[in-house]
Amino acid sequence: MTQEKIQTAVLGASGYAGMELARLLARHPRVGNSLLLRREAEGNNGSGMAPIPANGHSHISQPFSWEALQKTKVDVLFLATPHEVSRTLAPEAVERGLRVVDLSGAWRLNREEHRAVYGFCDPDPDKAARFARDAVYGLPELNGERIAGAQLVANPGCYATSVILALAPLLRAAMVDREHGIISDSKSGVSGAGKEPSARTHFVSVADNLSAYAVFGHRHVGEILEQLGLEAAEFTFTPHLLPIPRGILSTIYLRLQQPATTRRVEACFREFYAGRPWVRVFAPPQLPQIQFSLHSNYCDIGFCLADDGRRLVVISCVDNLLKGAAGQAVQNMNLMYGWREEEGLN
Amino acid sequence: MTQEKIQTAVLGASGYAGMELARLLARHPRVGNSLLLRREAEGNNGSGMAPIPANGHSHISQPFSWEALQKTKVDVLFLATPHEVSRTLAPEAVERGLRVVDLSGAWRLNREEHRAVYGFCDPDPDKAARFARDAVYGLPELNGERIAGAQLVANPGCYATSVILALAPLLRAAMVDREHGIISDSKSGVSGAGKEPSARTHFVSVADNLSAYAVFGHRHVGEILEQLGLEAAEFTFTPHLLPIPRGILSTIYLRLQQPATTRRVEACFREFYAGRPWVRVFAPPQLPQIQFSLHSNYCDIGFCLADDGRRLVVISCVDNLLKGAAGQAVQNMNLMYGWREEEGLN
Amino acid sequence: MTQEKIQTAVLGASGYAGMELARLLARHPRVGNSLLLRREAEGNNGSGMAPIPANGHSHISQPFSWEALQKTKVDVLFLATPHEVSRTLAPEAVERGLRVVDLSGAWRLNREEHRAVYGFCDPDPDKAARFARDAVYGLPELNGERIAGAQLVANPGCYATSVILALAPLLRAAMVDREHGIISDSKSGVSGAGKEPSARTHFVSVADNLSAYAVFGHRHVGEILEQLGLEAAEFTFTPHLLPIPRGILSTIYLRLQQPATTRRVEACFREFYAGRPWVRVFAPPQLPQIQFSLHSNYCDIGFCLADDGRRLVVISCVDNLLKGAAGQAVQNMNLMYGWREEEGLN
Amino acid sequence: MTQEKIQTAVLGASGYAGMELARLLARHPRVGNSLLLRREAEGNNGSGMAPIPANGHSHISQPFSWEALQKTKVDVLFLATPHEVSRTLAPEAVERGLRVVDLSGAWRLNREEHRAVYGFCDPDPDKAARFARDAVYGLPELNGERIAGAQLVANPGCYATSVILALAPLLRAAMVDREHGIISDSKSGVSGAGKEPSARTHFVSVADNLSAYAVFGHRHVGEILEQLGLEAAEFTFTPHLLPIPRGILSTIYLRLQQPATTRRVEACFREFYAGRPWVRVFAPPQLPQIQFSLHSNYCDIGFCLADDGRRLVVISCVDNLLKGAAGQAVQNMNLMYGWREEEGLN
Repeated sequence: MTQEKIQTAVLGASGYAGMELARLLARHPRVGNSLLLRREAEGNNGSGMAPIPANGHSHISQPFSWEALQKTKVDVLFLATPHEVSRTLAPEAVERGLRVVDLSGAWRLNREEHRAVYGFCDPDPDKAARFARDAVYGLPELNGERIAGAQLVANPGCYATSVILALAPLLRAAMVDREHGIISDSKSGVSGAGKEPSARTHFVSVADNLSAYAVFGHRHVGEILEQLGLEAAEFTFTPHLLPIPRGILSTIYLRLQQPATTRRVEACFREFYAGRPWVRVFAPPQLPQIQFSLHSNYCDIGFCLADDGRRLVVISCVDNLLKGAAGQAVQNMNLMYGWREEEGLN
Repeated sequence: MTQEKIQTAVLGASGYAGMELARLLARHPRVGNSLLLRREAEGNNGSGMAPIPANGHSHISQPFSWEALQKTKVDVLFLATPHEVSRTLAPEAVERGLRVVDLSGAWRLNREEHRAVYGFCDPDPDKAARFARDAVYGLPELNGERIAGAQLVANPGCYATSVILALAPLLRAAMVDREHGIISDSKSGVSGAGKEPSARTHFVSVADNLSAYAVFGHRHVGEILEQLGLEAAEFTFTPHLLPIPRGILSTIYLRLQQPATTRRVEACFREFYAGRPWVRVFAPPQLPQIQFSLHSNYCDIGFCLADDGRRLVVISCVDNLLKGAAGQAVQNMNLMYGWREEEGLN
Repeated sequence: MTQEKIQTAVLGASGYAGMELARLLARHPRVGNSLLLRREAEGNNGSGMAPIPANGHSHISQPFSWEALQKTKVDVLFLATPHEVSRTLAPEAVERGLRVVDLSGAWRLNREEHRAVYGFCDPDPDKAARFARDAVYGLPELNGERIAGAQLVANPGCYATSVILALAPLLRAAMVDREHGIISDSKSGVSGAGKEPSARTHFVSVADNLSAYAVFGHRHVGEILEQLGLEAAEFTFTPHLLPIPRGILSTIYLRLQQPATTRRVEACFREFYAGRPWVRVFAPPQLPQIQFSLHSNYCDIGFCLADDGRRLVVISCVDNLLKGAAGQAVQNMNLMYGWREEEGLN
Repeated sequence: MTQEKIQTAVLGASGYAGMELARLLARHPRVGNSLLLRREAEGNNGSGMAPIPANGHSHISQPFSWEALQKTKVDVLFLATPHEVSRTLAPEAVERGLRVVDLSGAWRLNREEHRAVYGFCDPDPDKAARFARDAVYGLPELNGERIAGAQLVANPGCYATSVILALAPLLRAAMVDREHGIISDSKSGVSGAGKEPSARTHFVSVADNLSAYAVFGHRHVGEILEQLGLEAAEFTFTPHLLPIPRGILSTIYLRLQQPATTRRVEACFREFYAGRPWVRVFAPPQLPQIQFSLHSNYCDIGFCLADDGRRLVVISCVDNLLKGAAGQAVQNMNLMYGWREEEGLN
């Protein structure tokens, strides 16, 4: 009953998502000892969330090199790197025969106008365009089959995960009055802003506070539009910074094409997510809270329908570092190797 | 240059709003020593935020009685009481010649369908209806003149203050596409939920969390509709519980009737609030944050207009215990006595 | 390679420690489906930390009865109950042939003067005394062998775990000047105060605050004295309530009998905990922080020695719900069945 | 009854303490419009706690120059600057006839061994030594008379304020067994660590955490020893970083020379602080909490005596930005001008 194990490597294991990923891989039953790699710009250890105990279990990373990957016979490379780094490394990794799950925004977008916000300047634009075309947007509940065969998986943004999963069932069922416009008022914990110290992430700036930012201009809007087939004018997105370390709650407002019942809306969600282990649909009037999905790979979805049967409020929650990043990356790897989606994530 | 001082009393000084009110009155230059009163149901002191030092400045309250009010020659009675208590006491107080500022929801609503949510059962319905008709909704920036002459001022709800002040200028200027619908996604600190311990206000339930509640069913909706002249179908309100002690941020979504410029929208706000000391309009792209108005009586308002000139996001912040409760009560008293609105609030 | 699984039951699965325990047992490889039981006084579900999703994984508990335990052929009964309940149920459970791990303070104390603080009134004092004598204090790093053979294990208090593990190596090595006195300044997250809503656990009372309580009078002092062989006059304990949901940090002050080196002190800790998987000794100058052991079963220990080689500050951290409660309970069960101490805890 | 007002300037008004100071001075009845100055290294505005509203009350600072000070006829210069800057500017300011209140550590220490920790390298060591000799340690409750006549006041450290005020009464009364040693286990909010973003002050590092730092090596130890007349071996100090924005609580452990009663200890504190408006002595068993003195200039002191009458735990709290910094600076200014200590601080 011994199973073949695959070899994985994580580049960027000192960031928040990278650290979570290293932890998940360390206890994944199908994965051997993961290679933890760092770019030169990174230090060797992560302060903050990272335990660096004296007698064991520490996350020691080594400098990145293709030789190291080859020597360890790595099968899957996880990139928890800034998008411009992923933009360079992912193609080379694929050409060297590795399968890649990229946690940055580098490969999530097909449409050029959406990519503009990232300001990529690719050395070989043709090659980049080719890889962009073949990259698969790694949302298992939408693109499971394509992920299974992908060489390069673009792991979704954390906000995007919470919004797309909440809207896809209703949009696919053509229940939404798209012209009326959809609004997502989203709130995220601070780890979503990354580990770089700044005035904005200083404890005193965040504690006892709430602030909106990037109104009408957040980078995750592009991938939401593309995956849901929406036009820019049909979707309004306002992210807020919550005084908590992790977790996202999106409150989504839309109007239904036709008046519906609560039962009908619930059925729409349940049918869409039947058999999907990592989405939980809440029975009304229960609503998700950030705590419920924290430290898990669940996306929790609930809703409330107005008496008029038209105005719908959908609420979805994810842990931004798990279903919104590292957990989803593992879920994608599971699909890529034909394993159960739950493997290593319970 | 000695000024006549008025006498005030606070019933319910052990609650969060009542304590803030007691503090504000204690340093108000036009107010003598305030009488702090408690109902039988309340204890003598408030744990939680309340300092009860051994050598001074404590808030000692005495049991409520009309005799105590008469003996101290109280001019203004502040009711920081449950609404059913205010429903009984306010009329009697007015009949005894007192002026009343009521911080509960008892007298805020004119339309019966809105009042239903409170479930009042008045012993003398005719009298209650008469008082309800004459009560003035105490939002100084809207009803300043009527407040000046009022015997009974219904101090607005905290959420309602943040929403009404953000919307009134645009609605009065007929700039809003009302039919399209207005949405307020509001977030409040825990003191807004009151001092009563419950599973919902337990530290472990709130910390590291965010939750929506009372979707399509919050009590403050009625007063918002009435003050803004909106129909129920035109306004969607979702309150959320933030893991902070105090402060409210409302993110409000609407569509303008005609495409407008940022300058035009800013001018609308600035003109409406010209000369009003307690509303601050932020110059784009600056947006209010909860910290900015905390521990002050300000309502901060900012906004962001989409490129299409139609989709508008307005953000407003208040300290729910000050501009959202005790501070506004003092501001109302200032108007009732012809004093500057800032008096005692800096 | 299929293993026999044992059957377990948790009484009190709606409290914080009980919920953690239910989660740990649910994924323990040697444990079958756990029976979750509630006393009549408890509700069926726990708000707060408990996710109660619509489609699975909820913690449904059933009313307690001896029949239910018998029917499911329960081997180990975990009591996450108030101490007076444990005082009654544990003896009966043992007499019915169950092995018991009790998470309350009911059976931790041998000396009567220490028990006085609990105010037990046992219906059959002789029997109670007999069980008290045979109960084993369930600190695996100290009493591993006795735990292996125990019928009734008294799971240690959370504060006590952090203090005893930090002091035992030094005291056993006779390095401490006991007469000079030992001080533990301990700080705990709010879940340590239990789930019952109260003025003290109200979010607004705890947030942005720190408070000491039960100075010279905390219940955990007795078990600390007994396990460490200290006299009351030799130990001062001050607990504080931290504005965080979980985690304990104890800062412990003592004087060494003889001047020592940092290396010598570190060796004392390392030797004592050699081979113990759940204690991590930090190499100076690294010190534990609450975050490092959160959501794990580790007790982290670090220290700092003054230049004089005499004054020693020891810092230890545990997650009060894991190593301080549910995790330690599972660790004890592992010892009782001869399994590895890590089983089900990674 | 019009009063002469003095002119003040604050250099470093964008830091946390400087901002608080600017606010306090803005509403001080004896102070004209304060000049807010910045060094070149500082930006013009402070994000974080600083409100920068569009229509008023913002804190606009101008670049520092002696000419600006002269032109505005500044009487008192407050330095909220790094200590090496204060070390240079304070002597020159005094020589130019200004009175100076320095909030840094530059002038607090008389003994050279204590100063070593700051690593001053003074261009003119003789002059620096002269100014160091004449500088007055600005703790009003201890040095009120000397402060009144001082040209250069060294405002105490925040931790030091909480510790010295808790210990001075007992030490002056010779009640403390100094040889046994005194321990202060102190906990501070994050604003005490300053506004500079760092891995240590990142929200995710601080939230849900507690950590000790600088054990046996904190800079404030020197001033505590000097003001209390203690030797280094007699005092152990462990600071901790709390997950709150502001506030300090020190838990202090000592042994009395002779067994005493609670009443005797309370009397010692009350006599010492009789007539001092900014120290509140709590009647046992009441103990201070951080919330009680937050946003005030109070130092709150309480204690608990063991049954043996010897072991004493003293607890003191201050708001680190007020009594621990800006509020105390204003209190010192009040003494320097012969005003009531409360002036401008209520």
